[in-house]
Amino acid sequence: MRIDVLSLFPDMFNGPMTDSIVGKAIDRDSFDMHVTDFRKYSTNKHGNVDDYPFGGGAGMLLQAQPIFDALEAVNEEATAAGFKTNRVILTDPAGQQFDQKMAESFAQEEHLTFICGHYEGFDERIKSLVTDEVSLGDFVLTGGELPTMVMIDATARLLPGVLGNQESAPGDSFSSGLLEYPQYTRPADFRGMKVPDVLLSGNHQKIDDWREKEALRKTYLRRRDLIDYDQLTAKQKELLADVKVEENPED
Amino acid sequence: MRIDVLSLFPDMFNGPMTDSIVGKAIDRDSFDMHVTDFRKYSTNKHGNVDDYPFGGGAGMLLQAQPIFDALEAVNEEATAAGFKTNRVILTDPAGQQFDQKMAESFAQEEHLTFICGHYEGFDERIKSLVTDEVSLGDFVLTGGELPTMVMIDATARLLPGVLGNQESAPGDSFSSGLLEYPQYTRPADFRGMKVPDVLLSGNHQKIDDWREKEALRKTYLRRRDLIDYDQLTAKQKELLADVKVEENPED
Repeated sequence: MRIDVLSLFPDMFNGPMTDSIVGKAIDRDSFDMHVTDFRKYSTNKHGNVDDYPFGGGAGMLLQAQPIFDALEAVNEEATAAGFKTNRVILTDPAGQQFDQKMAESFAQEEHLTFICGHYEGFDERIKSLVTDEVSLGDFVLTGGELPTMVMIDATARLLPGVLGNQESAPGDSFSSGLLEYPQYTRPADFRGMKVPDVLLSGNHQKIDDWREKEALRKTYLRRRDLIDYDQLTAKQKELLADVKVEENPED
Repeated sequence: MRIDVLSLFPDMFNGPMTDSIVGKAIDRDSFDMHVTDFRKYSTNKHGNVDDYPFGGGAGMLLQAQPIFDALEAVNEEATAAGFKTNRVILTDPAGQQFDQKMAESFAQEEHLTFICGHYEGFDERIKSLVTDEVSLGDFVLTGGELPTMVMIDATARLLPGVLGNQESAPGDSFSSGLLEYPQYTRPADFRGMKVPDVLLSGNHQKIDDWREKEALRKTYLRRRDLIDYDQLTAKQKELLADVKVEENPED
Protein backbone atom coordinates (compact mmCIF):
# COMPACT_ATOMS: atom_id res chain seq x y z
CA MET A 1 0.00 0.00 0.00
CA ARG A 2 0.99 3.59 -0.62
CA ILE A 3 -0.37 6.46 1.44
CA ASP A 4 -0.07 10.07 0.31
CA VAL A 5 -0.91 13.06 2.44
CA LEU A 6 -1.38 16.64 1.21
CA SER A 7 -0.83 19.07 4.07
CA LEU A 8 0.38 22.57 4.87
CA PHE A 9 1.94 21.26 8.10
CA PRO A 10 4.02 18.29 6.94
CA ASP A 11 6.24 18.49 10.05
CA MET A 12 3.24 17.56 12.20
CA PHE A 13 3.59 14.03 10.87
CA ASN A 14 7.14 13.66 12.19
CA GLY A 15 6.54 12.17 15.63
CA PRO A 16 3.35 10.11 15.12
CA MET A 17 4.48 8.60 11.83
CA THR A 18 8.10 7.97 12.87
CA ASP A 19 8.42 7.32 16.64
CA SER A 20 5.52 4.88 16.78
CA ILE A 21 4.30 1.45 15.77
CA VAL A 22 3.28 2.93 12.42
CA GLY A 23 6.74 4.46 12.01
CA LYS A 24 8.40 1.11 12.64
CA ALA A 25 6.11 -0.49 10.05
CA ILE A 26 7.14 2.14 7.48
CA ASP A 27 10.81 1.43 8.29
CA ARG A 28 10.13 -2.26 7.64
CA ASP A 29 8.47 -1.36 4.29
CA SER A 30 5.07 -2.68 5.39
CA PHE A 31 3.71 0.31 3.46
CA ASP A 32 4.90 3.53 1.80
CA MET A 33 4.03 6.95 3.09
CA HIS A 34 4.65 10.36 1.50
CA VAL A 35 3.66 13.72 2.96
CA THR A 36 3.51 16.55 0.41
CA ASP A 37 3.42 20.23 1.35
CA PHE A 38 0.91 21.53 -1.19
CA ARG A 39 2.15 25.08 -0.70
CA LYS A 40 4.95 24.07 -3.08
CA TYR A 41 2.35 23.81 -5.83
CA SER A 42 1.00 27.32 -5.40
CA THR A 43 1.30 29.35 -8.62
CA ASN A 44 0.98 32.53 -6.56
CA LYS A 45 4.30 34.37 -6.45
CA HIS A 46 4.13 34.73 -2.65
CA GLY A 47 3.29 31.04 -2.21
CA ASN A 48 -0.16 31.88 -0.82
CA VAL A 49 -2.66 29.04 -0.73
CA ASP A 50 -5.65 30.82 0.78
CA ASP A 51 -7.86 33.80 0.00
CA TYR A 52 -10.98 35.60 1.25
CA PRO A 53 -14.37 33.94 0.79
CA PHE A 54 -16.64 35.19 -1.99
CA GLY A 55 -19.67 36.83 -0.41
CA GLY A 56 -17.72 38.08 2.60
CA GLY A 57 -17.14 36.69 6.06
CA ALA A 58 -14.29 36.03 8.46
CA GLY A 59 -11.39 33.73 7.80
CA MET A 60 -9.47 32.52 4.79
CA LEU A 61 -10.27 29.55 2.56
CA LEU A 62 -7.85 27.11 0.97
CA GLN A 63 -7.84 27.66 -2.77
CA ALA A 64 -8.50 24.95 -5.33
CA GLN A 65 -5.39 25.41 -7.52
CA PRO A 66 -2.59 24.24 -5.20
CA ILE A 67 -4.54 21.15 -4.15
CA PHE A 68 -5.55 20.24 -7.72
CA ASP A 69 -1.95 20.52 -8.90
CA ALA A 70 -0.47 18.70 -5.90
CA LEU A 71 -2.94 15.85 -6.29
CA GLU A 72 -2.15 15.51 -9.99
CA ALA A 73 1.58 15.32 -9.24
CA VAL A 74 1.11 12.78 -6.45
CA ASN A 75 -1.16 10.62 -8.61
CA GLU A 76 1.37 10.58 -11.43
CA GLU A 77 4.10 9.53 -9.00
CA ALA A 78 1.95 6.77 -7.47
CA THR A 79 0.89 5.49 -10.88
CA ALA A 80 4.52 5.40 -12.03
CA ALA A 81 5.35 3.38 -8.89
CA GLY A 82 2.63 0.88 -9.79
CA PHE A 83 -0.12 1.85 -7.32
CA LYS A 84 -3.28 1.89 -9.36
CA THR A 85 -6.41 2.32 -7.28
CA ASN A 86 -6.91 5.77 -5.95
CA ARG A 87 -9.13 6.80 -3.11
CA VAL A 88 -9.00 10.46 -2.12
CA ILE A 89 -10.10 11.26 1.41
CA LEU A 90 -10.90 14.75 2.65
CA THR A 91 -11.22 15.46 6.37
CA ASP A 92 -14.39 17.48 6.93
CA PRO A 93 -16.64 17.82 10.00
CA ALA A 94 -19.63 17.35 7.64
CA GLY A 95 -18.28 14.06 6.29
CA GLN A 96 -19.21 10.46 7.03
CA GLN A 97 -18.16 9.34 10.50
CA PHE A 98 -14.96 7.29 10.52
CA ASP A 99 -15.32 3.83 12.06
CA GLN A 100 -13.71 0.40 12.09
CA LYS A 101 -15.57 -0.69 8.94
CA MET A 102 -14.12 2.27 7.06
CA ALA A 103 -10.63 1.44 8.36
CA GLU A 104 -11.12 -2.12 7.08
CA SER A 105 -12.18 -0.85 3.66
CA PHE A 106 -9.22 1.57 3.50
CA ALA A 107 -6.90 -1.36 4.37
CA GLN A 108 -8.05 -3.15 1.17
CA GLU A 109 -6.87 -0.33 -1.11
CA GLU A 110 -3.59 -0.04 -2.98
CA HIS A 111 -3.34 3.74 -2.75
CA LEU A 112 -4.93 6.24 -0.37
CA THR A 113 -4.51 10.01 -0.58
CA PHE A 114 -5.54 12.19 2.35
CA ILE A 115 -6.17 15.92 1.89
CA CYS A 116 -5.84 17.85 5.16
CA GLY A 117 -8.09 20.88 5.39
CA HIS A 118 -6.95 23.84 7.46
CA TYR A 119 -7.79 27.40 8.36
CA GLU A 120 -11.47 28.27 8.32
CA GLY A 121 -12.32 25.96 5.44
CA PHE A 122 -11.69 25.29 1.78
CA ASP A 123 -13.03 26.07 -1.64
CA GLU A 124 -15.99 23.78 -2.34
CA ARG A 125 -14.57 22.83 -5.76
CA ILE A 126 -11.85 20.79 -4.03
CA LYS A 127 -14.59 18.25 -3.27
CA SER A 128 -14.80 17.37 -6.96
CA LEU A 129 -11.47 15.53 -6.48
CA VAL A 130 -12.60 13.56 -3.47
CA THR A 131 -14.07 10.05 -3.16
CA ASP A 132 -14.63 10.14 0.64
CA GLU A 133 -15.45 13.08 2.91
CA VAL A 134 -14.74 11.79 6.39
CA SER A 135 -15.24 13.19 9.88
CA LEU A 136 -13.63 11.82 13.01
CA GLY A 137 -16.52 12.95 15.19
CA ASP A 138 -18.61 15.90 16.32
CA PHE A 139 -15.82 18.20 17.38
CA VAL A 140 -13.72 20.90 15.75
CA LEU A 141 -9.95 20.81 15.31
CA THR A 142 -7.37 23.31 14.03
CA GLY A 143 -6.83 21.19 10.91
CA GLY A 144 -7.13 17.86 9.18
CA GLU A 145 -3.66 16.56 10.09
CA LEU A 146 -4.54 14.81 13.36
CA PRO A 147 -7.68 13.10 11.96
CA THR A 148 -5.57 11.97 9.01
CA MET A 149 -2.98 10.44 11.35
CA VAL A 150 -5.75 8.71 13.31
CA MET A 151 -7.16 7.21 10.10
CA ILE A 152 -3.70 6.11 8.94
CA ASP A 153 -3.00 4.49 12.32
CA ALA A 154 -6.36 2.64 12.36
CA THR A 155 -5.82 1.49 8.77
CA ALA A 156 -2.13 0.61 9.01
CA ARG A 157 -2.54 -1.62 12.06
CA LEU A 158 -4.78 -3.87 9.93
CA LEU A 159 -2.05 -4.37 7.30
CA PRO A 160 0.01 -7.58 7.40
CA GLY A 161 3.22 -7.23 9.42
CA VAL A 162 2.39 -3.92 11.11
CA LEU A 163 1.43 -5.29 14.53
CA GLY A 164 4.02 -7.65 15.97
CA ASN A 165 1.45 -9.93 17.55
CA GLN A 166 -1.00 -11.09 14.88
CA GLU A 167 -3.41 -12.29 17.55
CA SER A 168 -4.01 -8.83 18.88
CA ALA A 169 -6.06 -7.33 16.04
CA PRO A 170 -9.16 -9.59 15.92
CA GLY A 171 -9.81 -9.69 19.70
CA ASP A 172 -10.12 -5.92 19.97
CA SER A 173 -13.19 -3.89 20.75
CA PHE A 174 -15.52 -3.37 17.76
CA SER A 175 -14.25 -6.34 15.73
CA SER A 176 -16.02 -8.79 18.11
CA GLY A 177 -18.99 -6.44 18.49
CA LEU A 178 -18.54 -6.26 22.29
CA LEU A 179 -16.44 -4.01 24.49
CA GLU A 180 -13.46 -5.66 26.15
CA TYR A 181 -13.73 -7.37 29.54
CA PRO A 182 -11.62 -6.01 32.43
CA GLN A 183 -8.03 -7.23 32.40
CA TYR A 184 -5.44 -7.55 35.17
CA THR A 185 -1.74 -8.21 35.37
CA ARG A 186 0.72 -8.60 38.23
CA PRO A 187 0.75 -8.04 41.15
CA ALA A 188 -2.41 -9.87 42.30
CA ASP A 189 -2.75 -7.33 45.12
CA PHE A 190 -1.79 -3.75 44.27
CA ARG A 191 -2.21 -1.28 47.13
CA GLY A 192 -5.08 -3.39 48.48
CA MET A 193 -6.85 -3.67 45.11
CA LYS A 194 -7.17 -7.35 44.32
CA VAL A 195 -7.52 -9.26 41.08
CA PRO A 196 -10.83 -11.21 40.89
CA ASP A 197 -10.27 -14.71 42.30
CA VAL A 198 -11.57 -16.47 39.20
CA LEU A 199 -8.64 -15.14 37.13
CA LEU A 200 -6.18 -16.80 39.54
CA SER A 201 -8.13 -20.10 39.66
CA GLY A 202 -6.49 -21.80 36.70
CA ASN A 203 -9.96 -23.02 35.64
CA HIS A 204 -10.05 -22.03 31.97
CA GLN A 205 -13.74 -22.66 31.45
CA LYS A 206 -14.65 -20.46 34.42
CA ILE A 207 -12.24 -17.77 33.23
CA ASP A 208 -13.74 -17.78 29.73
CA ASP A 209 -17.27 -17.57 31.15
CA TRP A 210 -16.30 -14.71 33.46
CA ARG A 211 -14.68 -12.80 30.58
CA GLU A 212 -17.63 -13.33 28.27
CA LYS A 213 -20.03 -12.18 30.96
CA GLU A 214 -18.00 -9.10 31.88
CA ALA A 215 -17.67 -8.12 28.20
CA LEU A 216 -21.46 -8.39 27.93
CA ARG A 217 -21.90 -6.43 31.18
CA LYS A 218 -19.68 -3.56 30.04
CA THR A 219 -21.35 -3.42 26.65
CA TYR A 220 -24.82 -3.61 28.25
CA LEU A 221 -24.00 -0.79 30.66
CA ARG A 222 -22.17 1.50 28.26
CA ARG A 223 -22.98 0.73 24.66
CA ARG A 224 -26.24 -1.21 24.42
CA ASP A 225 -26.36 -0.14 20.75
CA LEU A 226 -23.47 -2.50 19.97
CA ILE A 227 -25.33 -5.64 21.11
CA ASP A 228 -26.91 -7.47 18.18
CA TYR A 229 -29.09 -9.91 20.13
CA ASP A 230 -29.69 -12.19 17.15
CA GLN A 231 -25.94 -12.65 16.71
CA LEU A 232 -25.36 -13.79 20.30
CA THR A 233 -24.75 -17.48 21.06
CA ALA A 234 -27.18 -19.34 23.35
CA LYS A 235 -24.53 -19.11 26.08
CA GLN A 236 -24.16 -15.36 25.60
CA LYS A 237 -27.93 -14.87 25.77
CA GLU A 238 -27.97 -16.73 29.09
CA LEU A 239 -25.07 -14.66 30.46
CA LEU A 240 -26.71 -11.44 29.29
CA ALA A 241 -29.93 -12.41 31.09
CA ASP A 242 -27.89 -12.85 34.29
CA VAL A 243 -26.21 -9.47 33.75
CA LYS A 244 -29.60 -7.78 33.34
CA VAL A 245 -30.85 -9.25 36.63
CA GLU A 246 -27.65 -8.26 38.45
CA GLU A 247 -27.66 -4.72 37.08
CA ASN A 248 -31.38 -4.11 37.60
CA PRO A 249 -32.09 -5.54 41.08
CA GLU A 250 -35.35 -3.55 41.32
CA ASP A 251 -37.05 -5.28 38.39
CA MET B 1 -4.12 25.85 31.95
CA ARG B 2 -1.64 23.03 32.41
CA ILE B 3 -1.87 19.80 30.42
CA ASP B 4 0.05 16.69 31.45
CA VAL B 5 0.36 13.58 29.32
CA LEU B 6 1.57 10.17 30.50
CA SER B 7 2.81 8.15 27.55
CA LEU B 8 5.31 5.47 26.55
CA PHE B 9 5.84 7.25 23.21
CA PRO B 10 6.56 10.84 24.26
CA ASP B 11 8.33 11.56 20.94
CA MET B 12 5.05 11.07 19.11
CA PHE B 13 3.98 14.47 20.48
CA ASN B 14 6.90 16.27 18.84
CA GLY B 15 5.38 17.27 15.50
CA PRO B 16 1.70 17.80 16.35
CA MET B 17 2.38 19.73 19.56
CA THR B 18 5.27 21.81 18.18
CA ASP B 19 4.93 22.46 14.42
CA SER B 20 1.27 23.43 14.60
CA ILE B 21 -1.19 26.04 15.80
CA VAL B 22 -1.16 24.34 19.21
CA GLY B 23 2.64 24.43 19.25
CA LYS B 24 2.66 28.15 18.53
CA ALA B 25 0.18 28.68 21.37
CA ILE B 26 2.47 26.78 23.77
CA ASP B 27 5.39 28.99 22.63
CA ARG B 28 3.26 32.05 23.43
CA ASP B 29 2.49 30.60 26.91
CA SER B 30 -1.22 30.31 26.17
CA PHE B 31 -1.00 27.06 28.16
CA ASP B 32 1.61 24.70 29.63
CA MET B 33 2.15 21.20 28.36
CA HIS B 34 4.30 18.40 29.79
CA VAL B 35 4.70 14.91 28.35
CA THR B 36 6.01 12.34 30.84
CA ASP B 37 7.38 8.94 29.82
CA PHE B 38 5.93 6.75 32.57
CA ARG B 39 8.51 4.05 31.86
CA LYS B 40 10.82 6.23 33.99
CA TYR B 41 8.65 5.40 36.99
CA SER B 42 8.89 1.63 36.60
CA THR B 43 10.33 -0.01 39.72
CA ASN B 44 11.20 -3.08 37.63
CA LYS B 45 14.96 -3.31 37.15
CA HIS B 46 14.56 -3.80 33.38
CA GLY B 47 12.22 -0.82 33.11
CA ASN B 48 9.34 -3.07 32.06
CA VAL B 49 5.87 -1.57 32.27
CA ASP B 50 3.78 -4.48 31.00
CA ASP B 51 3.15 -8.10 31.90
CA TYR B 52 0.98 -11.09 30.92
CA PRO B 53 -2.74 -11.02 31.75
CA PHE B 54 -3.98 -13.05 34.71
CA GLY B 55 -6.16 -15.85 33.40
CA GLY B 56 -4.18 -16.20 30.17
CA GLY B 57 -4.59 -14.76 26.71
CA ALA B 58 -2.51 -13.02 24.06
CA GLY B 59 -0.83 -9.69 24.49
CA MET B 60 0.66 -7.73 27.33
CA LEU B 61 -1.08 -5.33 29.70
CA LEU B 62 0.20 -2.06 31.11
CA GLN B 63 0.80 -2.50 34.83
CA ALA B 64 -0.68 -0.26 37.50
CA GLN B 65 2.51 0.68 39.37
CA PRO B 66 4.32 2.89 36.82
CA ILE B 67 1.16 4.84 36.04
CA PHE B 68 0.20 5.28 39.71
CA ASP B 69 3.67 6.60 40.53
CA ALA B 70 3.94 8.82 37.44
CA LEU B 71 0.54 10.37 38.14
CA GLU B 72 1.47 11.09 41.76
CA ALA B 73 4.68 12.83 40.65
CA VAL B 74 2.92 14.88 37.99
CA ASN B 75 0.16 15.91 40.40
CA GLU B 76 2.71 17.08 42.97
CA GLU B 77 4.47 19.13 40.33
CA ALA B 78 1.24 20.67 39.06
CA THR B 79 0.04 21.47 42.59
CA ALA B 80 3.40 23.12 43.38
CA ALA B 81 2.99 25.22 40.23
CA GLY B 82 -0.45 26.38 41.44
CA PHE B 83 -2.74 24.27 39.24
CA LYS B 84 -5.36 22.92 41.58
CA THR B 85 -8.17 21.15 39.80
CA ASN B 86 -7.28 17.80 38.41
CA ARG B 87 -9.16 15.87 35.78
CA VAL B 88 -7.59 12.59 34.70
CA ILE B 89 -8.59 11.34 31.26
CA LEU B 90 -7.95 7.81 30.03
CA THR B 91 -8.30 6.96 26.34
CA ASP B 92 -10.35 3.77 26.05
CA PRO B 93 -12.54 2.44 23.22
CA ALA B 94 -15.19 1.65 25.85
CA GLY B 95 -15.25 5.22 27.15
CA GLN B 96 -17.68 8.08 26.58
CA GLN B 97 -17.54 9.46 23.05
CA PHE B 98 -15.53 12.68 22.78
CA ASP B 99 -17.48 15.63 21.36
CA GLN B 100 -17.47 19.41 21.24
CA LYS B 101 -19.31 19.68 24.58
CA MET B 102 -16.57 17.65 26.26
CA ALA B 103 -13.90 19.87 24.64
CA GLU B 104 -15.73 22.90 26.05
CA SER B 105 -15.81 21.38 29.52
CA PHE B 106 -12.10 20.46 29.33
CA ALA B 107 -11.34 24.06 28.30
CA GLN B 108 -12.81 25.27 31.63
CA GLU B 109 -10.35 23.24 33.75
CA GLU B 110 -7.10 24.40 35.29
CA HIS B 111 -5.29 21.09 34.95
CA LEU B 112 -5.87 18.11 32.66
CA THR B 113 -3.89 14.87 32.73
CA PHE B 114 -4.18 12.40 29.88
CA ILE B 115 -3.12 8.76 30.31
CA CYS B 116 -2.32 7.10 26.98
CA GLY B 117 -3.09 3.40 26.89
CA HIS B 118 -1.00 1.16 24.64
CA TYR B 119 -0.32 -2.44 23.76
CA GLU B 120 -3.28 -4.79 24.11
CA GLY B 121 -4.74 -3.01 27.12
CA PHE B 122 -4.09 -2.04 30.73
CA ASP B 123 -4.66 -3.27 34.24
CA GLU B 124 -8.21 -2.44 35.28
CA ARG B 125 -7.00 -0.91 38.55
CA ILE B 126 -5.59 2.06 36.63
CA LYS B 127 -9.19 3.18 36.19
CA SER B 128 -9.41 3.96 39.91
CA LEU B 129 -7.24 7.04 39.14
CA VAL B 130 -9.39 8.27 36.32
CA THR B 131 -12.22 10.84 36.23
CA ASP B 132 -13.06 10.43 32.51
CA GLU B 133 -12.78 7.37 30.26
CA VAL B 134 -13.02 8.78 26.76
CA SER B 135 -13.23 7.23 23.30
CA LEU B 136 -12.63 9.09 20.07
CA GLY B 137 -14.99 6.81 18.14
CA ASP B 138 -15.74 3.22 17.17
CA PHE B 139 -12.34 2.29 15.79
CA VAL B 140 -9.17 0.77 17.16
CA LEU B 141 -5.76 2.47 17.23
CA THR B 142 -2.26 1.33 18.18
CA GLY B 143 -2.37 3.54 21.28
CA GLY B 144 -3.88 6.47 23.11
CA GLU B 145 -1.38 9.08 21.89
CA LEU B 146 -3.24 10.24 18.77
CA PRO B 147 -6.66 10.48 20.50
CA THR B 148 -4.95 12.47 23.26
CA MET B 149 -3.49 14.89 20.70
CA VAL B 150 -6.91 15.25 19.07
CA MET B 151 -8.51 16.07 22.43
CA ILE B 152 -5.74 18.56 23.27
CA ASP B 153 -6.13 20.24 19.87
CA ALA B 154 -9.94 20.50 20.21
CA THR B 155 -9.60 21.85 23.76
CA ALA B 156 -6.67 24.20 23.17
CA ARG B 157 -8.28 25.98 20.23
CA LEU B 158 -11.04 27.12 22.61
CA LEU B 159 -8.54 28.79 24.99
CA PRO B 160 -8.06 32.57 24.75
CA GLY B 161 -5.22 33.55 22.43
CA VAL B 162 -4.73 30.18 20.73
CA LEU B 163 -6.48 30.95 17.45
CA GLY B 164 -5.30 34.15 15.83
CA ASN B 165 -8.73 35.08 14.54
CA GLN B 166 -11.16 35.17 17.45
CA GLU B 167 -14.10 35.21 15.06
CA SER B 168 -13.37 31.77 13.72
CA ALA B 169 -14.31 29.61 16.70
CA PRO B 170 -18.04 30.37 17.17
CA GLY B 171 -18.99 30.08 13.47
CA ASP B 172 -17.70 26.52 13.14
CA SER B 173 -19.69 23.38 12.61
CA PHE B 174 -21.30 21.98 15.79
CA SER B 175 -21.21 25.23 17.76
CA SER B 176 -24.06 26.63 15.61
CA GLY B 177 -25.77 23.26 15.48
CA LEU B 178 -25.67 23.19 11.66
CA LEU B 179 -23.04 21.98 9.22
CA GLU B 180 -21.23 24.68 7.30
CA TYR B 181 -22.53 26.04 4.00
CA PRO B 182 -20.32 25.64 0.89
CA GLN B 183 -17.60 28.26 0.58
CA TYR B 184 -15.68 29.57 -2.41
CA THR B 185 -12.63 31.75 -2.96
CA ARG B 186 -10.86 33.06 -6.05
CA PRO B 187 -10.89 32.49 -8.95
CA ALA B 188 -14.61 32.81 -9.77
CA ASP B 189 -14.11 30.30 -12.58
CA PHE B 190 -11.64 27.49 -11.92
CA ARG B 191 -11.27 25.00 -14.77
CA GLY B 192 -14.85 25.66 -15.79
CA MET B 193 -16.25 25.25 -12.26
CA LYS B 194 -18.02 28.47 -11.38
CA VAL B 195 -18.83 30.11 -8.06
CA PRO B 196 -22.63 30.48 -7.52
CA ASP B 197 -23.77 33.86 -8.91
CA VAL B 198 -25.37 34.97 -5.67
CA LEU B 199 -21.97 35.07 -3.92
CA LEU B 200 -20.71 37.54 -6.53
CA SER B 201 -23.87 39.69 -6.40
CA GLY B 202 -22.83 42.00 -3.57
CA ASN B 203 -26.36 41.68 -2.14
CA HIS B 204 -25.66 40.82 1.48
CA GLN B 205 -29.22 39.86 2.35
CA LYS B 206 -29.37 37.39 -0.53
CA ILE B 207 -25.95 36.00 0.37
CA ASP B 208 -26.97 35.48 4.00
CA ASP B 209 -30.19 33.76 2.92
CA TRP B 210 -28.33 31.50 0.48
CA ARG B 211 -25.80 30.52 3.15
CA GLU B 212 -28.43 29.82 5.75
CA LYS B 213 -30.39 27.71 3.28
CA GLU B 214 -27.34 25.74 2.12
CA ALA B 215 -26.26 25.09 5.73
CA LEU B 216 -29.76 23.74 6.38
CA ARG B 217 -29.63 21.70 3.14
CA LYS B 218 -26.32 20.06 4.01
CA THR B 219 -27.44 19.32 7.55
CA TYR B 220 -30.79 17.98 6.30
CA LEU B 221 -29.11 15.70 3.75
CA ARG B 222 -26.24 14.45 5.94
CA ARG B 223 -26.96 14.89 9.62
CA ARG B 224 -30.70 15.30 10.20
CA ASP B 225 -30.00 14.35 13.84
CA LEU B 226 -28.31 17.74 14.39
CA ILE B 227 -31.42 19.78 13.49
CA ASP B 228 -33.34 20.83 16.60
CA TYR B 229 -36.52 22.06 14.91
CA ASP B 230 -37.77 23.96 17.97
CA GLN B 231 -34.54 25.96 18.06
CA LEU B 232 -34.84 27.16 14.45
CA THR B 233 -35.91 30.75 13.71
CA ALA B 234 -39.10 31.34 11.70
CA LYS B 235 -36.89 32.18 8.72
CA GLN B 236 -34.92 28.94 9.09
CA LYS B 237 -38.13 26.91 9.28
CA GLU B 238 -39.27 28.51 6.01
CA LEU B 239 -35.92 27.83 4.33
CA LEU B 240 -35.92 24.23 5.59
CA ALA B 241 -39.41 23.72 4.14
CA ASP B 242 -38.08 24.89 0.75
CA VAL B 243 -35.08 22.55 1.06
CA LYS B 244 -37.38 19.59 1.77
CA VAL B 245 -39.45 20.33 -1.35
CA GLU B 246 -36.31 20.72 -3.48
CA GLU B 247 -34.68 17.54 -2.18
CA ASN B 248 -37.83 15.39 -2.35
CA PRO B 249 -39.40 16.27 -5.72
CA GLU B 250 -41.56 13.10 -5.66
CA ASP B 251 -43.52 14.00 -2.53
